[in-house]
Amino acid sequence: MKVLAILYNGFNAAVKEPRLLGTVENKTNGLHREVMSLLVSSDKEGPNSDFEKHLVDAEVVITTPFHPGYLTRELMEKAKNLKICITAGVGSDHIDLNAAVDHKIQVLEVTGSNVVSVAEHVVMNILTLVRNFVPAHEMIERGDWQVSDIARNAFDLEGKVVGTIGAGRIGYRVLQRLVPFDCKEHLYYDYAKLPVEREQAIKARRVEDIEEFVSQCDVVTVNAPLHEGTRGLINEKLLSKFKPGAWLVNTARGAICDTDAVAAALKSGDVWNVQPAPKDHPWRTMKNPLGGGNGMTPHYSGTTLDAQARYAAGTKSILENYFEGREQEPANVIVGHGAWATKAYGQR
Amino acid sequence: MKVLAILYNGFNAAVKEPRLLGTVENKTNGLHREVMSLLVSSDKEGPNSDFEKHLVDAEVVITTPFHPGYLTRELMEKAKNLKICITAGVGSDHIDLNAAVDHKIQVLEVTGSNVVSVAEHVVMNILTLVRNFVPAHEMIERGDWQVSDIARNAFDLEGKVVGTIGAGRIGYRVLQRLVPFDCKEHLYYDYAKLPVEREQAIKARRVEDIEEFVSQCDVVTVNAPLHEGTRGLINEKLLSKFKPGAWLVNTARGAICDTDAVAAALKSGDVWNVQPAPKDHPWRTMKNPLGGGNGMTPHYSGTTLDAQARYAAGTKSILENYFEGREQEPANVIVGHGAWATKAYGQR
Repeated sequence: MKVLAILYNGFNAAVKEPRLLGTVENKTNGLHREVMSLLVSSDKEGPNSDFEKHLVDAEVVITTPFHPGYLTRELMEKAKNLKICITAGVGSDHIDLNAAVDHKIQVLEVTGSNVVSVAEHVVMNILTLVRNFVPAHEMIERGDWQVSDIARNAFDLEGKVVGTIGAGRIGYRVLQRLVPFDCKEHLYYDYAKLPVEREQAIKARRVEDIEEFVSQCDVVTVNAPLHEGTRGLINEKLLSKFKPGAWLVNTARGAICDTDAVAAALKSGDVWNVQPAPKDHPWRTMKNPLGGGNGMTPHYSGTTLDAQARYAAGTKSILENYFEGREQEPANVIVGHGAWATKAYGQR
Repeated sequence: MKVLAILYNGFNAAVKEPRLLGTVENKTNGLHREVMSLLVSSDKEGPNSDFEKHLVDAEVVITTPFHPGYLTRELMEKAKNLKICITAGVGSDHIDLNAAVDHKIQVLEVTGSNVVSVAEHVVMNILTLVRNFVPAHEMIERGDWQVSDIARNAFDLEGKVVGTIGAGRIGYRVLQRLVPFDCKEHLYYDYAKLPVEREQAIKARRVEDIEEFVSQCDVVTVNAPLHEGTRGLINEKLLSKFKPGAWLVNTARGAICDTDAVAAALKSGDVWNVQPAPKDHPWRTMKNPLGGGNGMTPHYSGTTLDAQARYAAGTKSILENYFEGREQEPANVIVGHGAWATKAYGQR
């Protein structure tokens, strides 16, 4: 049985830090200690890549959202032995899920392994944008000191309206963490209404119309999976309904936003459409007219060392269940045996 | 009656943004709309400065903590007409308070005007340090993408021990905002114990010995005024008791830390000893061995536009009370008529 794992290169950092479990170098510390017939590589692009060469006879494929091997329908059709795809982390949009259903390939992810990590990242991004942190820190590093240039675009989060697109495991935790910040209102946009007691716990009110939703928010944060219902959701038309000066924090997937429309119209975002993003990607250097509004980072929010320990353990547990023929944790199953197992990826 | 206000220059930013009330340019929008005999300047250093020249016959002096005019005993002795010093903001350590007591000069500040602003700034700084935000964002701006170089020094706040030196209006609000983050423990070091119900509300436990306190913390945040009991508190000896890799967030006053000891030993800080800090101040560019750990900003945390509206209104109210001979709000009084009115500045 061949197990193929596409991880990212950690280079010197991984050599020095054994807790970087998501890297090629630390495979033996992490995900796969017990797996013998294992091929690990970071080489994932094109027909001569390790990914495409070894996929044809692999039974198990392990990928991460941080350096994703894109499993298209075409590739799945060549992968005759493939039975299970495991995402070491959360977010399986790099896998054609409908093709997985058709080919009876199971798709599992380590649900919950990074929801806290990402929720913390979202709160951090909201605070850094609203409070204008990045230009303030850059000013210090370059040797300047002009408080008013920072303060003119710095606000408190208190009293602002924060809305999340998606009130699932991450979006819920974001609003939960904001409760003591005394925002003016917490809003959410989602396909289903939360139970009243869960709404009350995070002080949230649902708005069913997305244009009405964004028009009320000072801060909009995207915490939804990428699927056909969310691809390009934040486009020029929707952006025109945002409040002027609103802040956008998208730590979900870049393709939920129209790249150029966001760069042209808005203040910030976080996860990227193509990873790694090209050097000249407009989101790297976009600024608002006051020199701020950009808190972009590489895609690492869900791969803190704390999260890596969780997703490594979860991946190992999925593998062991698979090898030993045990039932998987229902919450981890995205695609079961020839059928969707979740509504989170747009299936209704 | 001469009213002297030492504010900071906002230059173009203040011309464009009338809500920058703490600036020389916007004096008429802000603090002093109703004051006629007003002299406003940012020129505060040396015997030929507007500050020292006009202090000699001013009755009221208004300063801010963001660009402080330092009111020494020597200067107070020359200020024969001076009756009241108003800090437009919070933190009156730029005034020799014992000298104010001796000269029967009242000292008032706008208590509460920026406690939320600073508490939010502290939470932001904690998240950016623990999660390693600054190097991640700098990586994006310079066109690189190497997740493992960031992730090797990125952690979640969940499960960490956070301690505040000072559990007053700001420190309390910091721990209050962290309650939903599921930290392992909240600790505080202060001269007095909080009532049990207030301890429970922020899940905090008091540690009476400062060395024992810091040795238990993953994150230490300083939220105490600067006075003789806190000056140099974070010195080489105390730093040696910190956990290795601990994070330090000091948004109080720089002189609470020994500059070189912190630069040598530690990961970050926020407010400065001398403002503006010199271009070659070691805190501007200090880094930890992994290229991170520095989230320094200029002193703006308490001067967001939201805070400026609050401290401008508070300063105006103090002035009106003074002009009309009304009682001041007790919480705003630092030094009353020839006597200390608070324990917050080290008087017991």
